[in-house]
Amino acid sequence: MKSIIYENGRLVYLDQTLLPNKEVYTEPKTKEDYFNAIKNLKVRGAPAIGIFAAYAMALAGGDKAELKAYLDSARPTAVNLSWATARMLSAYNDGKELIAEAISIHNEDKEMCRKISEYGLSLLHDGDGILTHCNAGELATGEYGTGLGPLLLGNERGYNFKVYCDETRPLLQGARLTSYELEKAGLDVTLICDNMASLVMSQGRINAVLVGADRIANNGDTANKIGTGGVAVLAKYYSIPFYVLAPHSTVDINCESGKDIIIEERDGKEISELMFKEPAALKETKCYNPAFDVTDNALITAIITDKGIYRPPFNFKECL
Amino acid sequence: MKSIIYENGRLVYLDQTLLPNKEVYTEPKTKEDYFNAIKNLKVRGAPAIGIFAAYAMALAGGDKAELKAYLDSARPTAVNLSWATARMLSAYNDGKELIAEAISIHNEDKEMCRKISEYGLSLLHDGDGILTHCNAGELATGEYGTGLGPLLLGNERGYNFKVYCDETRPLLQGARLTSYELEKAGLDVTLICDNMASLVMSQGRINAVLVGADRIANNGDTANKIGTGGVAVLAKYYSIPFYVLAPHSTVDINCESGKDIIIEERDGKEISELMFKEPAALKETKCYNPAFDVTDNALITAIITDKGIYRPPFNFKECL
Repeated sequence: MKSIIYENGRLVYLDQTLLPNKEVYTEPKTKEDYFNAIKNLKVRGAPAIGIFAAYAMALAGGDKAELKAYLDSARPTAVNLSWATARMLSAYNDGKELIAEAISIHNEDKEMCRKISEYGLSLLHDGDGILTHCNAGELATGEYGTGLGPLLLGNERGYNFKVYCDETRPLLQGARLTSYELEKAGLDVTLICDNMASLVMSQGRINAVLVGADRIANNGDTANKIGTGGVAVLAKYYSIPFYVLAPHSTVDINCESGKDIIIEERDGKEISELMFKEPAALKETKCYNPAFDVTDNALITAIITDKGIYRPPFNFKECL
Repeated sequence: MKSIIYENGRLVYLDQTLLPNKEVYTEPKTKEDYFNAIKNLKVRGAPAIGIFAAYAMALAGGDKAELKAYLDSARPTAVNLSWATARMLSAYNDGKELIAEAISIHNEDKEMCRKISEYGLSLLHDGDGILTHCNAGELATGEYGTGLGPLLLGNERGYNFKVYCDETRPLLQGARLTSYELEKAGLDVTLICDNMASLVMSQGRINAVLVGADRIANNGDTANKIGTGGVAVLAKYYSIPFYVLAPHSTVDINCESGKDIIIEERDGKEISELMFKEPAALKETKCYNPAFDVTDNALITAIITDKGIYRPPFNFKECL
């Protein structure tokens, strides 16, 4: 289930806003097509955005410096986006072949995901029940994904996992993306509401929790999709290993602890209205919609990056 | 926000299936009107169903024994329903005035909720931040409610609570009913997704958790809406008091512990399709949809009934 495919000189992307109901691959032609695909979340997931923007720099016409600024403005807070376009602009200024550079970025991401997946898989066993939250899979990356990487790699090698996907309110990435891509890859997937995680853990169905990360502080405190921290508390209570999987670039050694991470708040209508047939609450009812939470390092069994497996006490300054 | 009103010889009920978007009071005329209101969840909440069925026994025509059997069949597992219709049939056989008996049942429920609310309020403080899960409010009962009773009663007395309502997936009773009725009663309400409870607790916003109960075992293990057990684990982790509020009739002293409580599973489409504009997962994706979970007694700070406040270790055989 590749989100970005470059083949025979043509680039196509899977429109993730149409999932899981329609599977449509689209070929961007103009710089506006690339811009809109990123802005409108048709291509999402930090690594996937970087890869896609790299191809855009190679394939879209016009002045490259202007193109970089234009693409960067599609999602100003996406670090991978400006990192990839900067690297492409530098390659252009150095007279390198741009499409080769984009393919390198794509391949490096695949290699990184593969390493994370290998390290992660070494911690799992055939037959394990796994709980996931949000989406950190192949759709968000070049291949395999981060949080889901060990599951996809293990599945290729004949491991039989039984995966429970939190639907991940409010935007349902767990339902729309994770359950979708694992189902398509042939894994045994069961979708649950977020508030059912405690019950399935108490029933002994879960042997490990796998999640991705948006930002990891030096002390191991981890910002990820809202709800991750609560799952970690539950895992601790039920004595289930809780694993965070992410590229080593997600670790911000200048961020001492989770206290330094600001929680982004999004529009409350995402809770009360966005996905529903009818509004689920009165218009005047306040909705608090934090997009992320911070998981305390004391709740994390191990953090797995492409550089290896790290266990507490975490101090990445000294080992990354 | 009364769900059932008997005034000047006329009975009306608030159609809860239309909330929060439409507030429609309907007067049932025929026995079929009463039956359908119960069957189709227009009147819901165990105590409210009992009260409504009592009025139905008084006001609908025909043979009373047949009427009882007919009403009971609307929701066969609702204990309050058959309890209320049996009491009404017995009153009929004893030659009592039926409408007076129905009003008695209604008033006794109000009195019970009021006692629960008074006991519960004694545990709270002005300015407290409160987390609720599902709906155990006035809509489900004769007045005040159980889990929400202390909030409604305290609000009448000038307490300023700051209430966070879990939306309570999959059927969103927290959004559609709890946030609605508390908003209408003038409380300071904030709606959150279930997976945000951990974050708001970690931020110090919550001083107590209040929930209702569907069934309480002799040892205090408590079955309630799915997700309640997880909230209790979080409350324990963050050292926040977790209170269960219910009529003493909810305690089943013949049920030794939560192990004896069977978890009802409902249609998986409630997770993936029911409320959404478009399906949130592939048709072939399995959805596990337990309707309840059991909260371990070790996680419960106190159980509050109309008979008083009970603290661990719970052994209701000896004190109820």
